[in-house]
Amino acid sequence: MPAWVVVGPGDDAAVVTHERGALSVLTTDVQVEGIHFDRRFVPPAAIGHRALAVSLSDVAAMGATPRAALLSLVMPGTLEVDVVDGILDGVLALAARHRVALVGGNISRTPGPLVVDMTLTGSVHPRRILSRAGARPGDDVYVTGMIGDALVGLQSLQADPTSASPERETCRERYLRPEPRMRAGVLLGRNRAAAACMDLSDGLADGLRQIADASGVGMTIAADALPISTGARAWHEAHGRDPVMASIAGGDDYELLFTAHATQRGRLRGVLKHVGSLPITRIGVVTKGRDLVIRTAADDREVPSGFEHFR
Amino acid sequence: MPAWVVVGPGDDAAVVTHERGALSVLTTDVQVEGIHFDRRFVPPAAIGHRALAVSLSDVAAMGATPRAALLSLVMPGTLEVDVVDGILDGVLALAARHRVALVGGNISRTPGPLVVDMTLTGSVHPRRILSRAGARPGDDVYVTGMIGDALVGLQSLQADPTSASPERETCRERYLRPEPRMRAGVLLGRNRAAAACMDLSDGLADGLRQIADASGVGMTIAADALPISTGARAWHEAHGRDPVMASIAGGDDYELLFTAHATQRGRLRGVLKHVGSLPITRIGVVTKGRDLVIRTAADDREVPSGFEHFR
Repeated sequence: MPAWVVVGPGDDAAVVTHERGALSVLTTDVQVEGIHFDRRFVPPAAIGHRALAVSLSDVAAMGATPRAALLSLVMPGTLEVDVVDGILDGVLALAARHRVALVGGNISRTPGPLVVDMTLTGSVHPRRILSRAGARPGDDVYVTGMIGDALVGLQSLQADPTSASPERETCRERYLRPEPRMRAGVLLGRNRAAAACMDLSDGLADGLRQIADASGVGMTIAADALPISTGARAWHEAHGRDPVMASIAGGDDYELLFTAHATQRGRLRGVLKHVGSLPITRIGVVTKGRDLVIRTAADDREVPSGFEHFR
Repeated sequence: MPAWVVVGPGDDAAVVTHERGALSVLTTDVQVEGIHFDRRFVPPAAIGHRALAVSLSDVAAMGATPRAALLSLVMPGTLEVDVVDGILDGVLALAARHRVALVGGNISRTPGPLVVDMTLTGSVHPRRILSRAGARPGDDVYVTGMIGDALVGLQSLQADPTSASPERETCRERYLRPEPRMRAGVLLGRNRAAAACMDLSDGLADGLRQIADASGVGMTIAADALPISTGARAWHEAHGRDPVMASIAGGDDYELLFTAHATQRGRLRGVLKHVGSLPITRIGVVTKGRDLVIRTAADDREVPSGFEHFR
C-alpha cells in the first residue's frame, strides 16, 4: 500500500490522506453479467479490467488522477475460484499501471448473476476540474482515439468468438480491454486546454447530447471528420449499415469527448505533444442553436436521441 | 447540496472538498435481495435505510463523521416504480438526519435480484481514528445498546410478518431500521476513549474474534453482563435455545464493540454523559492468552468460530 493509505483493507473502513490543496473525485460503476458483459466471450481478467477501466475513464474525464478503489463482488455460489482470481488479476494489473490502491470492498453471495461494483476516488486541484457544463458557442469539438471500435468488437465476438481478422481483433481488444485516457484527461485539466469534457461510455451521440444539455448549447459534427477505423467501416458496410450512424451510436469506447475555446488552441497543441500516439481529432463546432447535427456532403442529419445500446 | 460539494450528481464523477486537516474514510457495502433482505417483509424504505445504516455504522466505528454517499441500484426490470421511490426515500431520510450528501451513483438493470450497493465517505482527524488493532491485555471490553435484538426481529418476521408483541416489535424495528451509533463513535474517537473499536454487523462472536485477531489478544466475556433484552431472552427460551449463545451469534445489530485501557476510564465516563439514553455495557476483559471465553456461573465456554448467519 502507498504511504497515503493510513488504514487499508480489513478494518471497518479504509482511511486515506489527501494531496495538499486537492479535492476528491468520487465515482462508482456497476457491471452486471448478462447486461454489461457476457461471460461466454469476456474472460475473467477482462471483466476485472473493464470494471476498473470504466471508473478510471470517469476520473480522467474530470481531469483528475486516480487514487483509491473499493471493489464489491456479488457472486453466484457456482462461480469457480479461478474466475474470481482472474477478475481480481484483471483489476490489480490495471490498478498497478495507474497507481491505484485497492483499499477495501466486500464479497457477497447472490442467487442471481455476477455483479462487479467498482468505486474509485481521484485527486484534482480546484482550477483543473473538467466538467460537462463549460462548452460555449464557437468552441471546437474534439474526441480522442477511434469511435465505434468497441461496438464492432462486441458484435464480432457475439457473431463468432473463436476467430477474427487482425483488424477486428483490434476492435475486440478495444471492447475487452479499453484503455482509459488518463494522461489526456490530466493534461487537459492541468493545461486548462478544454472547456467541457466527458468520457464516452454510451456512445458519441449520447456524449454530444450530454455536453450540449449540460452547457445549454448545440453542436454541428462533420461526418467526414469522425475517427472511424477502416476495420469498423468494413464491418458495418458488410452488414448493410451506415458506418457513421452505427459508430456514433456504439457504446463502450471510453474515449474523451471535449470542447475547447479558440483561446485554448495553443494550450491544446501543447497537450497533443505529450499524449504519445493517441490521436485527438477535431470533429465539429459548438453552436448557439440547440440542434445536434451530423453534417455530410449530401445533407444535415439530426443526432438521434435515445439510442439503444447494442447489448 | 452542502457547500463542500463542488460537483454533484450528473457529471462524470462528483467532486468534494475536505475538512481542514482531516483524512477520508471510505467504505462500501452491498445488500442483495434473497441474501441480506427478504422483500416479503422488508418494506422498500427499510431496504434503503438499512443500505445506508450499514455503511454509516462502519464510518462510526472508525470514529469518523459521514460526508458523501454514492448509491448503485441494480434492479430487475419487474421492479415497480413505487419500490424504487421507497428505497430512495429510506436512503434520503436517514442521509438527511446524519447530514450525508448523496453525490452520485448509478442505476442498472439486472436479470437477477435487486442489489443495493452503498459507498460512503467520512471525515476523521488523524489522532481520532479508531481501528480494530488497538486492544491490549487488561483493557475492558464494552458494547453499545442491546445485542441479538435484530436476530430476534428477523426470526419473528420470518415466522409471522403480520403481528408481534410489543417486545418483539422493538426487535423488528432494530432489524428493519437499525440506528447506527454515529454519536458514540465520534465521541469515542474525539475523546480518545477507546483503544480498539468495530461495529457489529455479523454478531458479537464475530466482532470479538475480529478485534482479538487484529490486536493479537484474547478476551474473557461475562455471560451475565451481556445486554440481552427480555424480549430476546423470552423468544430464544420459547424456542429451546440458550439466549446467550443465540444472541452472540446474531448479526445485523450495528452496535459498537470497543475496548478501553484503564487510563481511558475517565474519558469514557465523559463520553457516557453525552450519548443520551444509549446504554454502554462493560462485558469483559482483554487477555494476553489468545482464547475467546464466555464465562458463566457454571463454566467457561469457547466462543465458537465460523458462526453461520441466520439468513
